Amino acid sequence: MTANPLLAACPVPTAETEQVLLGHGSGGQLSAELLRDVILPGFGRAASAGPLEDAAVLALPKPEAVMSTDSFVVDPLFFAGGDIGSLAVHGTVNDLAMMGAMPTALAVAFIVEEGFALEQLARISRSLGAAAEAAGVPVATGDTKVVGRGAADGLFITTTGLGVRLPAARPSASRIRPGDVLLLSGPIGLHGTTILSTRAGLGFETEIGSDSRPLHRVVAAAVAAGADGVHALRDPTRGGVASALNELAAASGVGVVVDETALPVPGPVAAACDLLGLDVLHVANEGCLLAFVAPDRADAVLAALRSRPESAGAVRIGQAVAEHPRRVVVRTGIGAVRVLDMLVGEQLPRIC
Amino acid sequence: MTANPLLAACPVPTAETEQVLLGHGSGGQLSAELLRDVILPGFGRAASAGPLEDAAVLALPKPEAVMSTDSFVVDPLFFAGGDIGSLAVHGTVNDLAMMGAMPTALAVAFIVEEGFALEQLARISRSLGAAAEAAGVPVATGDTKVVGRGAADGLFITTTGLGVRLPAARPSASRIRPGDVLLLSGPIGLHGTTILSTRAGLGFETEIGSDSRPLHRVVAAAVAAGADGVHALRDPTRGGVASALNELAAASGVGVVVDETALPVPGPVAAACDLLGLDVLHVANEGCLLAFVAPDRADAVLAALRSRPESAGAVRIGQAVAEHPRRVVVRTGIGAVRVLDMLVGEQLPRIC
Repeated sequence: MTANPLLAACPVPTAETEQVLLGHGSGGQLSAELLRDVILPGFGRAASAGPLEDAAVLALPKPEAVMSTDSFVVDPLFFAGGDIGSLAVHGTVNDLAMMGAMPTALAVAFIVEEGFALEQLARISRSLGAAAEAAGVPVATGDTKVVGRGAADGLFITTTGLGVRLPAARPSASRIRPGDVLLLSGPIGLHGTTILSTRAGLGFETEIGSDSRPLHRVVAAAVAAGADGVHALRDPTRGGVASALNELAAASGVGVVVDETALPVPGPVAAACDLLGLDVLHVANEGCLLAFVAPDRADAVLAALRSRPESAGAVRIGQAVAEHPRRVVVRTGIGAVRVLDMLVGEQLPRIC
Repeated sequence: MTANPLLAACPVPTAETEQVLLGHGSGGQLSAELLRDVILPGFGRAASAGPLEDAAVLALPKPEAVMSTDSFVVDPLFFAGGDIGSLAVHGTVNDLAMMGAMPTALAVAFIVEEGFALEQLARISRSLGAAAEAAGVPVATGDTKVVGRGAADGLFITTTGLGVRLPAARPSASRIRPGDVLLLSGPIGLHGTTILSTRAGLGFETEIGSDSRPLHRVVAAAVAAGADGVHALRDPTRGGVASALNELAAASGVGVVVDETALPVPGPVAAACDLLGLDVLHVANEGCLLAFVAPDRADAVLAALRSRPESAGAVRIGQAVAEHPRRVVVRTGIGAVRVLDMLVGEQLPRIC
């Protein structure tokens, strides 16, 4: 049988290995060992206590669930402020949070390239588990596939989150009204410039790090203060603040005015953007959110944001207007106005 | 800016394209166009009618959900009897079904290699949508990431399913008792031999095709007939019947005896396995299930299985025993007994 050329590519290891083998994706004994010895110990207390079946049964507080999925293909896998494991938790927790939902469970699917170091897989599993535990959400179920060398670039992770909406929360891209105040929970540009600087060896990542963090508690604070006056929430990830605001403006049919002087841009981010010719408004973030809030609730929501460490630097950066529906404009320091478009193509591939 | 080497790899297309571009993963206008023009039209009526937000809100009939996730990396993407799109629906629907759950919603995440043909992406999206519609489950939310040439092999799909258990259903790997009857819903070996034959150009795939199909209605019929006497269900995918039975035996602490003469093995599958030196019990399936059923319910469940077209060929193939706990043995036609192990490594990489 070993002479069979179709099977020859799938060696059965006879000794300890430090790399992921194709056989780790077999669904057989090696798969079970990879899960038992590398992945689940990494997940730690975040791993579901339930049996390892093909699916998890979840009790929910009410018969409604919010579901979100995201694949993470970030390059490099490790960066200042996080790695693909923590990012995969934060990104999905935050997508749920933007719907006003608190996370109930995560499903995690790994696609691993043959030859990937087991030590790195363990490290990433630990990071993912720690991030899930810090966010208070269990990893309820998962899957691991292994593909041959060259068929994937190291590791991709797809996380799917299940959450339940806060009773008072009904944020939606379509609920923004002219007059709504636009709040931003913290500094922008950190994630994208960190990744790009790391990839290119520019050195900015020694001064800054990704803002990757879970935002559901920030959302809970905002909703506690603003209730149903929190009209829309969005985390400006791929495509940055510019894409997020354009999508929201289009979905609600409002115009948006951003006050450029109010934008919190850390010095090293500004320097990196200058060097790279990037507009910071197009750079990805993984730990801040945009909120459109009814005017009478805006001060209370801003105060609530500032009360939490993740959003202590929250500021008011603009508002929704009836003029120029579906367009986003930036008012600069010298009083000029420019239109802020979405990028047509890709500025920063594999940023998340 | 175009002289920036970091950005030079991300051309903004100025004309129509027939391939996936890195920019299609930007989260910007091109991403929106890919979704609007290629993926969502493919999904058709299976696409969620809701707004395109980062997550979907789902009404459930009760405050309990079953969740399962799987990445699909099958090679080739198209094969007799299906493609990666239909397989990604069936595989996840079936993982839910094995917990006694009917599918409520799917989340679909694409990782696409730059340069992948848009026509193929559209075709796979159509197939995925048609499979979801046929299974009666909407695609509620999704994500698309694009990675550079060589960083993935064409297309990977991760589907996550949310389901709700049938009231009477409590199947679990741990509930098998000695005396339980082992049923198999239909022929084995079709998926794995089809994939392998297609990959190697052996020609068997002109006679056979993958058994990829949704099994939740089969499970509903079995549970209607056997209720809580349906102790455990498992679809023998990666690792085949051998892995599935070994896992179940280990989880329940029982022994399992399989009657080899009762196994339904189509002629071309047997021929392909002979040629390739494969044991059909290790070959992956995507459209049949194993059921351990309390003895007093076994006839009723078998009749219920046979009443459905997907499982018309259901047969009794063995039983759980108190002897040799956690071991699976096969009784051959001449009365000999051999131990059936899980494979240690990988026999058929990228089979699903």
